[in-house]
Amino acid sequence: MSENTFGKLFACTSFGESHGSAIGCVVDGCPPNLELSEADLERDLARRRPGRSRYTSQRRETDQPRILSGVFEGRTTGTPIAILIENVDQRSRDYEKVRSHLRPGHADYVYLHKYGHRDHRGGGRASARETAVRVAAGAIARKYLSECCGGIRISAWLSQLGSTQLGCPQPLAVDDNPFFCADPERVPELEEQLQSLIKAGDSVGAEVTVVARAVPPGLGAPLYGRLDAELAAALMSINAAKAVAIGDGFEVVAQRGSQHRDEMTPEGFCSNHAGGIVGGISTGQDIVARVAFKPTSSIRLPGRGIDVDGNAVEVVTTGRHDPCVGLRAVPVAEAMLAHLLMDHWLRHRAQNAEVSSSTPQLPAGESSR
Amino acid sequence: MSENTFGKLFACTSFGESHGSAIGCVVDGCPPNLELSEADLERDLARRRPGRSRYTSQRRETDQPRILSGVFEGRTTGTPIAILIENVDQRSRDYEKVRSHLRPGHADYVYLHKYGHRDHRGGGRASARETAVRVAAGAIARKYLSECCGGIRISAWLSQLGSTQLGCPQPLAVDDNPFFCADPERVPELEEQLQSLIKAGDSVGAEVTVVARAVPPGLGAPLYGRLDAELAAALMSINAAKAVAIGDGFEVVAQRGSQHRDEMTPEGFCSNHAGGIVGGISTGQDIVARVAFKPTSSIRLPGRGIDVDGNAVEVVTTGRHDPCVGLRAVPVAEAMLAHLLMDHWLRHRAQNAEVSSSTPQLPAGESSR
Amino acid sequence: MSENTFGKLFACTSFGESHGSAIGCVVDGCPPNLELSEADLERDLARRRPGRSRYTSQRRETDQPRILSGVFEGRTTGTPIAILIENVDQRSRDYEKVRSHLRPGHADYVYLHKYGHRDHRGGGRASARETAVRVAAGAIARKYLSECCGGIRISAWLSQLGSTQLGCPQPLAVDDNPFFCADPERVPELEEQLQSLIKAGDSVGAEVTVVARAVPPGLGAPLYGRLDAELAAALMSINAAKAVAIGDGFEVVAQRGSQHRDEMTPEGFCSNHAGGIVGGISTGQDIVARVAFKPTSSIRLPGRGIDVDGNAVEVVTTGRHDPCVGLRAVPVAEAMLAHLLMDHWLRHRAQNAEVSSSTPQLPAGESSR
Amino acid sequence: MSENTFGKLFACTSFGESHGSAIGCVVDGCPPNLELSEADLERDLARRRPGRSRYTSQRRETDQPRILSGVFEGRTTGTPIAILIENVDQRSRDYEKVRSHLRPGHADYVYLHKYGHRDHRGGGRASARETAVRVAAGAIARKYLSECCGGIRISAWLSQLGSTQLGCPQPLAVDDNPFFCADPERVPELEEQLQSLIKAGDSVGAEVTVVARAVPPGLGAPLYGRLDAELAAALMSINAAKAVAIGDGFEVVAQRGSQHRDEMTPEGFCSNHAGGIVGGISTGQDIVARVAFKPTSSIRLPGRGIDVDGNAVEVVTTGRHDPCVGLRAVPVAEAMLAHLLMDHWLRHRAQNAEVSSSTPQLPAGESSR
Repeated sequence: MSENTFGKLFACTSFGESHGSAIGCVVDGCPPNLELSEADLERDLARRRPGRSRYTSQRRETDQPRILSGVFEGRTTGTPIAILIENVDQRSRDYEKVRSHLRPGHADYVYLHKYGHRDHRGGGRASARETAVRVAAGAIARKYLSECCGGIRISAWLSQLGSTQLGCPQPLAVDDNPFFCADPERVPELEEQLQSLIKAGDSVGAEVTVVARAVPPGLGAPLYGRLDAELAAALMSINAAKAVAIGDGFEVVAQRGSQHRDEMTPEGFCSNHAGGIVGGISTGQDIVARVAFKPTSSIRLPGRGIDVDGNAVEVVTTGRHDPCVGLRAVPVAEAMLAHLLMDHWLRHRAQNAEVSSSTPQLPAGESSR
Repeated sequence: MSENTFGKLFACTSFGESHGSAIGCVVDGCPPNLELSEADLERDLARRRPGRSRYTSQRRETDQPRILSGVFEGRTTGTPIAILIENVDQRSRDYEKVRSHLRPGHADYVYLHKYGHRDHRGGGRASARETAVRVAAGAIARKYLSECCGGIRISAWLSQLGSTQLGCPQPLAVDDNPFFCADPERVPELEEQLQSLIKAGDSVGAEVTVVARAVPPGLGAPLYGRLDAELAAALMSINAAKAVAIGDGFEVVAQRGSQHRDEMTPEGFCSNHAGGIVGGISTGQDIVARVAFKPTSSIRLPGRGIDVDGNAVEVVTTGRHDPCVGLRAVPVAEAMLAHLLMDHWLRHRAQNAEVSSSTPQLPAGESSR
Repeated sequence: MSENTFGKLFACTSFGESHGSAIGCVVDGCPPNLELSEADLERDLARRRPGRSRYTSQRRETDQPRILSGVFEGRTTGTPIAILIENVDQRSRDYEKVRSHLRPGHADYVYLHKYGHRDHRGGGRASARETAVRVAAGAIARKYLSECCGGIRISAWLSQLGSTQLGCPQPLAVDDNPFFCADPERVPELEEQLQSLIKAGDSVGAEVTVVARAVPPGLGAPLYGRLDAELAAALMSINAAKAVAIGDGFEVVAQRGSQHRDEMTPEGFCSNHAGGIVGGISTGQDIVARVAFKPTSSIRLPGRGIDVDGNAVEVVTTGRHDPCVGLRAVPVAEAMLAHLLMDHWLRHRAQNAEVSSSTPQLPAGESSR
Repeated sequence: MSENTFGKLFACTSFGESHGSAIGCVVDGCPPNLELSEADLERDLARRRPGRSRYTSQRRETDQPRILSGVFEGRTTGTPIAILIENVDQRSRDYEKVRSHLRPGHADYVYLHKYGHRDHRGGGRASARETAVRVAAGAIARKYLSECCGGIRISAWLSQLGSTQLGCPQPLAVDDNPFFCADPERVPELEEQLQSLIKAGDSVGAEVTVVARAVPPGLGAPLYGRLDAELAAALMSINAAKAVAIGDGFEVVAQRGSQHRDEMTPEGFCSNHAGGIVGGISTGQDIVARVAFKPTSSIRLPGRGIDVDGNAVEVVTTGRHDPCVGLRAVPVAEAMLAHLLMDHWLRHRAQNAEVSSSTPQLPAGESSR
């Protein structure tokens, strides 16, 4: 019942603190004979790495993953794949002065009440640093989905920064800028916005959109193992996430049934308001979800907090922090969706290997967003 | 790994189809010595029951729960509590004509691709009828939270119907009208809106807000067992849910860190933008979440679908359906939150029974919504 | 993490007490499209039923299973199969006089310390009555193994009663006598032995051997998901079990490696000391296990116990009890092995659907026992 | 559902191969504030280490554990504890010549059929090397049981080597000889026996007895979460185990009920035939179990095997192997029992924290063995 394991048949058990010696995970349930090497993990890790631009934390981590087990002669063996990433640039002394402070908007206060103490160095387990192992595990899933599941593809982009909404006119441009922005023309605007934030010592929220393409119909389950319920958990488990929407999300509240239902013709679906999931099960259309990330509370502007004895203190964060934590969540959101789909792929074939429907599989049609 | 079980230590395994002989569940992990009888389940079941007003399905179910085990001499024994609710008013023949139709916006198409066949009678397992067992199991949790966990209280209300936003000026009025509306003055407006929808043969979406009060700080876990992640899954697992927000939800995207972080003083929290959960763990403030429910696709207006052979068909739903499925989701949302909190209460004390923090627990302060 | 669920992908959640209104289970994870009706469960239930002969409890139960869900038009749907068996002949008043007694060798004392109270009527949850639901769930597994897994077959027999050891010269004779004895010539001897026990008011232990045939190589896992470890748990979870042996069992202690290792030639295995499992994974040979069942403590001979206040009491059991509980464990052992193998079949194909070894599968060869 | 995780609330996820770069585990669910350092793991690891005497494998491993996470300022934090043990002395080339051989009595054949390939170097995941991580995780449990659970103590010893049965007259002598023999006078006899086996190039089986003392009544559960069922799985999951007995084990078959039931008087239990577990729940008496370990198949005497193409080959093992793998299983059996009891301690208090029975807890009385 581990509180640190994600996935049922393809399961990742994560460990490690921001300022401990290493972080890592054990990935269990990966089918054998998948070609895999450390290089396969490095691409996605590089995208998430801090210090990539002036707009993310200046902590310098190499994030070099080491595969300790489960791969032999270049292929997975079917046994657990342990991945280790050493922490290189901890600088724990940055935190010495906040040892007794409980910072507003941080997990300090709740950790103290949960565990009776806390690791004051950079948030310990609550740090976004843990997301590196999600990205590493997700890279395995992404490879499996691509090679063994008929080419399922996952991508994500920044769809809103503060109040600036962003479309996705050039999907391939996402990796060309430090904002994971799919609209290159808007990049200067984002630069300006973040530059001004950094100057003000403040931070801002972000929305990320994540999509899976070429997913077959039939993944998921009707009740508590619903694909949408588990996707909501997967995305909400990312640090700083506060809301998740699938398909039209909160807009469905104001819709009529005649408008929302995605009609079907022999030529395919006519719309995708559902975001590719109906009744907890994939429809074969694009799976589309959005996540809202709050602005980080680690800012230079002083805020009111208390200390461990309950006294008032003024808190100022001077460490190396991201002005917008949502930016680096883009590859993390991709990793979580990849992980989830691979898990459901295995779960589906466990129970339904004999199934084949004689009903034709419809073309996916157009996404409505 | 059951796909039909919710909860880890307090676990509910659900069974039954809309038009089978019965629905029910097995609730495992309830501590012994809780006073419990069928009457304790009936109050919440009555609130969810169809046919309560002209604005919900006219199916007539008594929803009389029968406790088959786990209660002896009026108290729980610590062994599994099986709950059975017989289906009384199935009228399966209503569905005979749609036997081969795959209705737009329904789970017909995905069930066919998942299982190779489907139960065409009223959606089978995909029917909202299953939520009755969630409410029954949730009633046990609600009683335990109230009596054994220091008085944790759960309530929910309709916070938006179509584009009509609704506040919560009179929490106690929620059960006085069929809309679970906490603003009695707006009830006539809602009646009119639904009356016109019924006339048009269409349906509309809804937003439900659910709140837990008097939750102690410390429930939850930092990573995949996060309280917010599991709350997102719990709420998204309700039929027709498409989005979940915790605290300020999607509004955090446009917020600044200096604005979002909930400051603390020795007198308490100064705001509750976080919705009572930080770092995946409860803060002791009110837990506040919202869920968006899509408009049901079971409407009288004809829509384009296909049949099992892939041919175009026109689909019209003539059965007894709710013009707004979100209404009856109000007690279901409460049940899911109650269930989740009881589960986390047990999980917390398993690992942390020895913990006591010397830091004072802060007053909850005001909710920001 | 339910304490009342057996199996991971094919999972049975059991409920019900000996003297409550009903017992039953929810079977989750059964693949869709298996032909199934109540009649399929009845054959095995009849074999386990009390009152079959003068050598088992005279309680009269019809053990009529009712399938409440998960089967539609004669086939499984892939959703949970709920099975209900009403208790007919409880006679709880038999137990009124032992209400405050803690009987030696019974679970009374431990339940009191675990739960703070207990159901004194016939052992409540500790009663062997619960095994009826294992047999019902196991019957589904047996059918699936036979029809969808290449004809895997399970059988068990009484291999020792008291100090009388019994072989298996006529496997088909097992169901012809109330002892599940595969050596019909020895039946009169067993009758005499039990008759004399009944007269003496005492009970005796038994050993059951259970075998699975036509199991393919490759089911199981190397570590904690080992087929032998889970088989040990499955069999030890049957009431009154005190020991489990796989293959040569405790005899391996005195064996040499040169004697124990099952040699292989291109014609097949040369022996089966391992009992069909090596390294936690099936070899393709017969899986052979034995279980020891203790003599029931429900006997007419007075024994020393205490009451709930800690005072000495003399305990005499006058209810309707089996002089040898091990006898009726024969179909239960079969059910547990069937359940386990079906679970591992699904688990194997989840992870290894792509696997096919070019190495030939060896003939099973002879069992060494 | 990880196949490589042991325990439910106190869970150990294991990774690593015999000849990979490292082995290790992630221990999740350990309560916070337990004093812990690497030194706490080293004592038990030293007892299990190969190369301790001429009677165990001559592989030279330092087995130096490195705690990577979950411990801060000398105390557990409540977050996952990752333990890493680098492999130092692999000598994989020893295995080059058996690359295509499937050795009798080894997991080669079954791995090939399960995974489509195998790691031929020293058994890969099937190697007893993995048990080092069980011992490391078990050492945490042992410390917790001793310090936070009222002084629960675990010990084990060699109770049979080949056909030589061994008592336990001097429990403290167990660690004074390489055989974990509690009867020092018999040590020369064992030396002679093993010396002669080494000379003959053969191996022999062993039986290990493991005991837990000062366990309170009430740990366990009535059905599938039974303490005895999970203990059977825990011990049977150790490499080479073929049988498990609790209390009187297989001897119960020949016992009468009047003889087996452990009578109770106000002064305590009169015997312990049950081995400290009744109805799946601890009685407060010593928990006593025995495990049979087969003789290793890695011997110098040639045996018949096949190669990956199905051709006959003669197999001779020349690597560094234990003539009796059961010897080093002694600390492993202790670790598994410690792990299991800690897990059940946490599970018990999750569900039963409010329970307190007014019935006095009986003195444990004498063990019957």
